[in-house]
Amino acid sequence: MALLHPSSFLRVGLAQMHCQANRLQNLLAAKKLILEASERGVHVLCLPELFLSEYFCQKEDHAYFELAEPIPGPTTDELSSLAQEHQLVLIASLFEKRAHGLYHNTAAILDADGTYLGKYRKMHIPDDPLFYEKFYFTPGDLGFRSWKTKAGQLGVLICWDQWYPEAARLTALHGAEVLFYPTAIGWHPSEKKEVGKQQKEAWQLAQRAHALANGVYVVSVNRFGHEAPAGGEGLEFWGSSFVAAPDGSLLMEAPENQEGLFLADLDLSLIEKQRTHWPFLRDRRIDAYTGIEQRYLDVEETSFPSCRK
Amino acid sequence: MALLHPSSFLRVGLAQMHCQANRLQNLLAAKKLILEASERGVHVLCLPELFLSEYFCQKEDHAYFELAEPIPGPTTDELSSLAQEHQLVLIASLFEKRAHGLYHNTAAILDADGTYLGKYRKMHIPDDPLFYEKFYFTPGDLGFRSWKTKAGQLGVLICWDQWYPEAARLTALHGAEVLFYPTAIGWHPSEKKEVGKQQKEAWQLAQRAHALANGVYVVSVNRFGHEAPAGGEGLEFWGSSFVAAPDGSLLMEAPENQEGLFLADLDLSLIEKQRTHWPFLRDRRIDAYTGIEQRYLDVEETSFPSCRK
Repeated sequence: MALLHPSSFLRVGLAQMHCQANRLQNLLAAKKLILEASERGVHVLCLPELFLSEYFCQKEDHAYFELAEPIPGPTTDELSSLAQEHQLVLIASLFEKRAHGLYHNTAAILDADGTYLGKYRKMHIPDDPLFYEKFYFTPGDLGFRSWKTKAGQLGVLICWDQWYPEAARLTALHGAEVLFYPTAIGWHPSEKKEVGKQQKEAWQLAQRAHALANGVYVVSVNRFGHEAPAGGEGLEFWGSSFVAAPDGSLLMEAPENQEGLFLADLDLSLIEKQRTHWPFLRDRRIDAYTGIEQRYLDVEETSFPSCRK
Repeated sequence: MALLHPSSFLRVGLAQMHCQANRLQNLLAAKKLILEASERGVHVLCLPELFLSEYFCQKEDHAYFELAEPIPGPTTDELSSLAQEHQLVLIASLFEKRAHGLYHNTAAILDADGTYLGKYRKMHIPDDPLFYEKFYFTPGDLGFRSWKTKAGQLGVLICWDQWYPEAARLTALHGAEVLFYPTAIGWHPSEKKEVGKQQKEAWQLAQRAHALANGVYVVSVNRFGHEAPAGGEGLEFWGSSFVAAPDGSLLMEAPENQEGLFLADLDLSLIEKQRTHWPFLRDRRIDAYTGIEQRYLDVEETSFPSCRK
């Protein structure tokens, strides 16, 4: 590994996990990865989406609401202690119970001194065969933002958010230099042969493009392995956690089928270099983006009023 | 070539040109490509950015303003006749003189019956070493839109626009099923060895991601060849005109160094399929994109007011 200047150097850890039905087993696996991350000099460790359980959204079952917990709460308390003990920032995706009958898909951001900095509630909620998230999660109401941590200004988004340029843009405009995406994405086994390669490439393409469009790093952390908690063919999560550089290039990619801690060293000075050599932020037409907040622009118009000025 | 259903089948032509200093020579080359396109059953032909001249923006020279012309005007009149004669839609990027001292980088959209449908004025204007466009072109004031042509609902953007997810999104929201990007992008020869591959990949990545995020086709048409109208090392335009499918995959790519007409057959029925299988448009958080129209969000905020409702 090249020796990097300490002031611009950030070592991120991607905890690629094969999540089990047993909560305690997942928590122990996460703790083991946190310990390893600490030993290997990681500044920020990101856990995969909903790492404390199997991906229960394969089925609409009211029983699964019992998995939810308050945030902050017992789990974040425990993780905060670990963050403090090991002096690393933790990004932990959890199933949040906000009130009776009100649940979110949420990530907690815990600073390297153990401080609970806040949470991101997944804004874009999918609903597709075996990804029945709209049954469980109310869409987030905290918007897009970033957090000032001891390891730098970090943004957090979750899984389905990764398909939305608006989410990445807003998080970057809030100052994030690294976007973390805890994720649970995989194949329907019966579709894998036909469209599996294309699907995984598209997943990576979208996020690499966010890195490029905004001149930020993107760190995407996925679970892996086959899970069929609802019976049937289940889902095969494709791992392949990766890091994209501010120029959109692929900096690191984990294998599809391997549990463990994967590392990348981010040279944060490349952000300034990328943004001045490809000065996209300089030229945004902020006077002309009216309509982005609309569902569809089916009304016949010859031009935007806001562009006529 | 597979036989496609006529109602969902669109044959696009990408006119990859090596543009010369001589206007007439470029016009003749374009006419030749239009004729060939007609013979090969093309429905929409897109010419590269500013195809009537060398890429004069390598130098800030007032003399080049003499290249500009009104739109509509003599060139669009001539091209309209050709569009009508050959029954194809033409997208023609021209240097527009709007008034004394007021110029735009503009594309005219000419329907297959010769009708001048309107124009798109490049909204995002670059300014980088040897790409001194801010000297010549006032940023567009017509906003983002699409045009109903005899070959379908088409969107037009130009070169530097291709780095902006907002531009692609708005054009798609206006109903465009295909986004055309007339382009003039190339390498600084002295940089090519070190960063050339990455630059071209990033260029393709950004546009493929627009196709994916919006479930549309993207057709990017670049010039190629070395040009040094301002002396010095000049620029080496990298050709590689390409088409991306609505799933972000690369459908066709032209070589880096070959003049000619390149074709792709677009199955427009894939748009509905892609958008229902990957329903990104369904889940956009239009209540939460406030801030996109801001330059930067450096004010400390805990959440967006619009997300609190």
